[in-house]
Amino acid sequence: MTDDDTKDNVIPGSEEELATPDVRGYDFTGEFDLAELLASYETTGFQATHLAEAIDIVKRMRDDGATIYCTYTSNIVSSGLRETLAYLARENLVDVMITTSGSITEDVIKTEKPFKMGEWDVDEAAMRERGINRLGNIFVPSDRYVWLEEYLNDFFPEFFAEEKVRTPVEFSRELGATIDDEHSILANAADNDIPIFCPALTDAEVGNFLYYYKQGYDSDVGIEILQDYDDLIEEGLLADKTGLIVIGGGLPKHHAIMTNLFRGGADYAVYISTGVEGDGSLSGAPPDEAVSWGKIKEEVTNHVEVKAEATLVTPLLVAEAFKKYEPAGGEDEAEATAADD
Amino acid sequence: MTDDDTKDNVIPGSEEELATPDVRGYDFTGEFDLAELLASYETTGFQATHLAEAIDIVKRMRDDGATIYCTYTSNIVSSGLRETLAYLARENLVDVMITTSGSITEDVIKTEKPFKMGEWDVDEAAMRERGINRLGNIFVPSDRYVWLEEYLNDFFPEFFAEEKVRTPVEFSRELGATIDDEHSILANAADNDIPIFCPALTDAEVGNFLYYYKQGYDSDVGIEILQDYDDLIEEGLLADKTGLIVIGGGLPKHHAIMTNLFRGGADYAVYISTGVEGDGSLSGAPPDEAVSWGKIKEEVTNHVEVKAEATLVTPLLVAEAFKKYEPAGGEDEAEATAADD
Amino acid sequence: MTDDDTKDNVIPGSEEELATPDVRGYDFTGEFDLAELLASYETTGFQATHLAEAIDIVKRMRDDGATIYCTYTSNIVSSGLRETLAYLARENLVDVMITTSGSITEDVIKTEKPFKMGEWDVDEAAMRERGINRLGNIFVPSDRYVWLEEYLNDFFPEFFAEEKVRTPVEFSRELGATIDDEHSILANAADNDIPIFCPALTDAEVGNFLYYYKQGYDSDVGIEILQDYDDLIEEGLLADKTGLIVIGGGLPKHHAIMTNLFRGGADYAVYISTGVEGDGSLSGAPPDEAVSWGKIKEEVTNHVEVKAEATLVTPLLVAEAFKKYEPAGGEDEAEATAADD
Amino acid sequence: MTDDDTKDNVIPGSEEELATPDVRGYDFTGEFDLAELLASYETTGFQATHLAEAIDIVKRMRDDGATIYCTYTSNIVSSGLRETLAYLARENLVDVMITTSGSITEDVIKTEKPFKMGEWDVDEAAMRERGINRLGNIFVPSDRYVWLEEYLNDFFPEFFAEEKVRTPVEFSRELGATIDDEHSILANAADNDIPIFCPALTDAEVGNFLYYYKQGYDSDVGIEILQDYDDLIEEGLLADKTGLIVIGGGLPKHHAIMTNLFRGGADYAVYISTGVEGDGSLSGAPPDEAVSWGKIKEEVTNHVEVKAEATLVTPLLVAEAFKKYEPAGGEDEAEATAADD
Ligand SMILES: NC(=O)c1ccc[n+]([C@@H]2O[C@H](COP(=O)([O-])OP(=O)(O)OC[C@H]3O[C@@H](n4cnc5c(N)ncnc54)[C@H](O)[C@@H]3O)[C@@H](O)[C@H]2O)c1
Ligand SMILES: NC(=O)c1ccc[n+]([C@@H]2O[C@H](COP(=O)([O-])OP(=O)(O)OC[C@H]3O[C@@H](n4cnc5c(N)ncnc54)[C@H](O)[C@@H]3O)[C@@H](O)[C@H]2O)c1
Repeated sequence: MTDDDTKDNVIPGSEEELATPDVRGYDFTGEFDLAELLASYETTGFQATHLAEAIDIVKRMRDDGATIYCTYTSNIVSSGLRETLAYLARENLVDVMITTSGSITEDVIKTEKPFKMGEWDVDEAAMRERGINRLGNIFVPSDRYVWLEEYLNDFFPEFFAEEKVRTPVEFSRELGATIDDEHSILANAADNDIPIFCPALTDAEVGNFLYYYKQGYDSDVGIEILQDYDDLIEEGLLADKTGLIVIGGGLPKHHAIMTNLFRGGADYAVYISTGVEGDGSLSGAPPDEAVSWGKIKEEVTNHVEVKAEATLVTPLLVAEAFKKYEPAGGEDEAEATAADD
Repeated sequence: MTDDDTKDNVIPGSEEELATPDVRGYDFTGEFDLAELLASYETTGFQATHLAEAIDIVKRMRDDGATIYCTYTSNIVSSGLRETLAYLARENLVDVMITTSGSITEDVIKTEKPFKMGEWDVDEAAMRERGINRLGNIFVPSDRYVWLEEYLNDFFPEFFAEEKVRTPVEFSRELGATIDDEHSILANAADNDIPIFCPALTDAEVGNFLYYYKQGYDSDVGIEILQDYDDLIEEGLLADKTGLIVIGGGLPKHHAIMTNLFRGGADYAVYISTGVEGDGSLSGAPPDEAVSWGKIKEEVTNHVEVKAEATLVTPLLVAEAFKKYEPAGGEDEAEATAADD
Repeated sequence: MTDDDTKDNVIPGSEEELATPDVRGYDFTGEFDLAELLASYETTGFQATHLAEAIDIVKRMRDDGATIYCTYTSNIVSSGLRETLAYLARENLVDVMITTSGSITEDVIKTEKPFKMGEWDVDEAAMRERGINRLGNIFVPSDRYVWLEEYLNDFFPEFFAEEKVRTPVEFSRELGATIDDEHSILANAADNDIPIFCPALTDAEVGNFLYYYKQGYDSDVGIEILQDYDDLIEEGLLADKTGLIVIGGGLPKHHAIMTNLFRGGADYAVYISTGVEGDGSLSGAPPDEAVSWGKIKEEVTNHVEVKAEATLVTPLLVAEAFKKYEPAGGEDEAEATAADD
Repeated sequence: MTDDDTKDNVIPGSEEELATPDVRGYDFTGEFDLAELLASYETTGFQATHLAEAIDIVKRMRDDGATIYCTYTSNIVSSGLRETLAYLARENLVDVMITTSGSITEDVIKTEKPFKMGEWDVDEAAMRERGINRLGNIFVPSDRYVWLEEYLNDFFPEFFAEEKVRTPVEFSRELGATIDDEHSILANAADNDIPIFCPALTDAEVGNFLYYYKQGYDSDVGIEILQDYDDLIEEGLLADKTGLIVIGGGLPKHHAIMTNLFRGGADYAVYISTGVEGDGSLSGAPPDEAVSWGKIKEEVTNHVEVKAEATLVTPLLVAEAFKKYEPAGGEDEAEATAADD
């Protein structure tokens, strides 16, 4: 090959001028404006662009009056995102919550006793001795669970008084009603009639104390999950439009997309996840995959995944798309926002 | 600083000679031996070392006669690892299985209709048109679910005949008993009385068809999950030693470690996972974290995590630690192995 | 075991009250304040906490008058982070830059022709036909490289006029001097005498055009890299304190920590990375690992890694720790900041 | 919606029967055969399928007599994969090697003093005291570098005797010629005239000792990198077909694909990587992305990425595609294989 031949390979040229926006980041010259900085994410590329798209999609969900499903894994509530989710529930900004059992346990504990900042790297056996549980870089002293047991032992007799077999949605609603804490997800959701779905209610300390209760006090109690599933499906069937805000993956994510299948798919979907696609996992599956199943409707821009650890981006998303945004026609939300500011 | 000063920084020297093995990979000289290749992983470093440790720990579980819990996420059964798990159940090599609902659905479908090899990158909307669902690089034509509905509609009346409210363990046991397929996990588990725990039974097509059944035929049916949780805890309390083989993360992983907490922790644990620690997720939490909670007992070498996509390493682990290994004192397993070869 | 025995396992209790801060996220009640939101990241847990720590460490670098090394991979400059880095260079807020060759190529192109927003998922062969290169979700039409070749062909004769063998630092400095663009990293670095180290200068289009130049015009030209390495080591030896801001991994990261070894380690280090530890890679190695090598000094809080995709967090870090922060005693930086606002 | 309407959504059905293979894993019934187990990976799904494809593509490279480029990051040689790469060099099974500087340093050290197995989690400051460097779960006592300095100080005067400015390829070739160790990559590559490209030669201990040598003995010495780049491009231009085996990412990966651009792209490519796509990094870029640049030729099955930590899969790939495989027409390789068995 001559140099000219190789050049056709190296720089083939291109006549076409693309109509898409220029890649351009925030301009730090002049007065600083954090809102503009976040707006510039749209043309920053990589995941920044996806965060900007996520903000845009959530705004559109709200403009459209969609029934908004917010799903979150338990560790989200271990972290300071609990207060963010409590805000969404308090202001009635989401309609359905789906989660796993640890998040219920921990929301209740935090109404009385905080979790503490910790470290990733510790002497785990020594921690066990000290009765301190580690959850990432968060520490949970065991006395939290001693307290929780007492609290639940007060609650259970009442909860199972009339019916012995109850559902997870009933559990979180009635438990939430006992709580007085403006930063509690359960309390606010109960107040605003936002159901919290949690099919695997047993898989956390709540399950442990139900076990002791069943063993020690009442062998007839039980948790029935099919009724909730029916209700969740119906919720989707009744909705005109639905939008999903999926924080983390796992069961909550799948529960949301699976029940939206009945209505022919969700209209909007925003995922925030560290999951990877290559393992074929549900947690790592991108929104695209859900399209083939009919779990998400196909329109070019109604879904996005932000590949990020949730604590980094969720507060920014909520700030821009909820706190600072008044939806176009959405009376109810607009009021809520207004009332709050 | 003079050169001599900087040299103290750059090459401080060390008197100590370390007693640990040399890092050394497989020697490709001479006759090839794949078993030796896997043995060389021990001194290859990084994740190869962890795979070698995982093989070693599983062998020790078996030598020790531990009650072995095998947990797996649904996509594991979507993949060809289904046949590997069916082998473990068939030969009675594990004692307890914990999973999520998709794995039950798919094991049943595969008794009649195979999943097909596919691609990651497709036109998702066109796939929806064609009725082909994508699951990573695996394709599942929708007629599989048409067939499944019929199969389950035959099964449900019988299953709910005597009691209207049943548990997930009963579900998989009685469903497994209807299946005749040597590669079915459910069939083999039913045969060998290996319980399959699956608290969130609704969260997959099984749930969808339960919904239709409840709507159309019998509004009283239900799924109760507390009894199973009790049984799983008791299983751990009765065991002399316990060992966990955790394939993927999520609820199945947590269910195993949480219930082992009651007995003061599992004695052995092997995790195979793509989860990352930095998101504070349960799925990404390393075995070390479970030590602080008392979910895994602390001894220097009784736990390991192989950071890998499961299809790459699970068959190798099962080959070395089960198929090719006869446990020291373990009569039962030894027989099983012998009978099989 | 009795229930009481198991309870000692399940809830061992703990007498100790931890002195660390409570985990608590941003409080969305009341007037919204994005700066407070970022401050709340400190007690939000997981990676949010690390971002807050990173901001704090960079502030301390600046208070301490440390020589600041900023390293970045090439794709950082493909993205809109180019404008962020250009700001750091323009305001003289960092002292040394270390990068890979693609970033030099792309900074020059962007002075004349923007990169364009694109998509991850495209028909790659069709893109090749159209002469459009894909870089994540960024598109680079090939005519950019046609333009670059002309620009470099004007520059090379001058650059090699007096000496035939030049270094990468000379290359970026003299090339930067030809550029007039307030958003160019090269132009601003040249202006402010910030050296840009890039040992593998050949590994990008710059290398390709050097190849053609050497083939076609002057077979004696060469790129010598040892002199730069000496200079980089000396830079570290002369510094009183050093601080590293490491965006992405790879060669730039290692180059910074390796040369800091000569002075006994860096005093401050902030990593932003998607790398994973389990592969034993340098890109994935956490700051802790560098301590064992003496590349980072050990003090409890002088280093942190934010596990995140850089576009999501770098602008926030720069906003809080540079743009909005005036270092305690640091005259020079204070002026720069002041002048800019 | 009626149940019938929702059913069209839930189970749309599909008439089409797919022609692709069934998903089916290894059958553990009967006599065990590890080669068959690896063959079954093809239909196991997820990454197992990609490993099977990688084996197939490497076999085809060899059948086709392609010039094979093998690229690897430094940590690959820290691990026991060093012996695997040395085998490929010894048997002349690859034609070009591209790497980063640490791999050269470490290959030389290992000819005399082994690296030792270690742990991820250590007291890093104590390690520094003891003079033990950590590299993932591998320990490298500092005396290795004391020894290396002496070795290189013997070598440098000779190396720079006739010319003061040398290239990285010359460096590894002449250094390799001084080594007598059948497991040394450098020694075998030197023997078989396999060039080892390493543009950023300074970025490791080799660089450090070059620095001391330049400071202390001969200020005129230098490392010139443009000549090597020319040679690497020419290598590609002369080849009839080229195939890439890319272990890890970074500079070595890009160097291989970039220089293949001159010839219009590589014909075959296998990547083994932990990189993630979402960060827009070169390390995480899938083979598809290289197609848009013309760095890899587009044919449906000539490229694959195995998302895996390299120590887990590289020995299996080398075993199946090299050690146990005799290429169709490839005389030379066939002999090599034969001679070795
Ligand atoms: N605090 C706890 O995490 C906790 C406590 C008690 C019980 N449990 C139980 O453990 C089981 C498994 O937990 P899970 O299902 O809630 O999810 P999980 O923690 O297993 O996470 C599932 C996936 O979500 C994604 N994810 C998680 N955290 C993320 C983050 N911070 N940012 C982005 N993505 C993230 C990851 O891809 C992860 O693999 C549940 O049954 C739960 O009740 C958890
Ligand atoms: N635009 C380009 O990426 C480009 C263009 C031309 C040449 N090249 C060449 O390719 C070679 C390899 O590129 P490299 O060494 O610059 O790095 P790289 O792209 O290979 O990245 C190295 C590591 O840095 C981390 N990283 C990268 N991007 C990140 C992000 N956005 N957020 C967080 N972490 C991130 C990842 O862990 C990654 O594995 C270099 O020689 C370079 O000159 C690259």
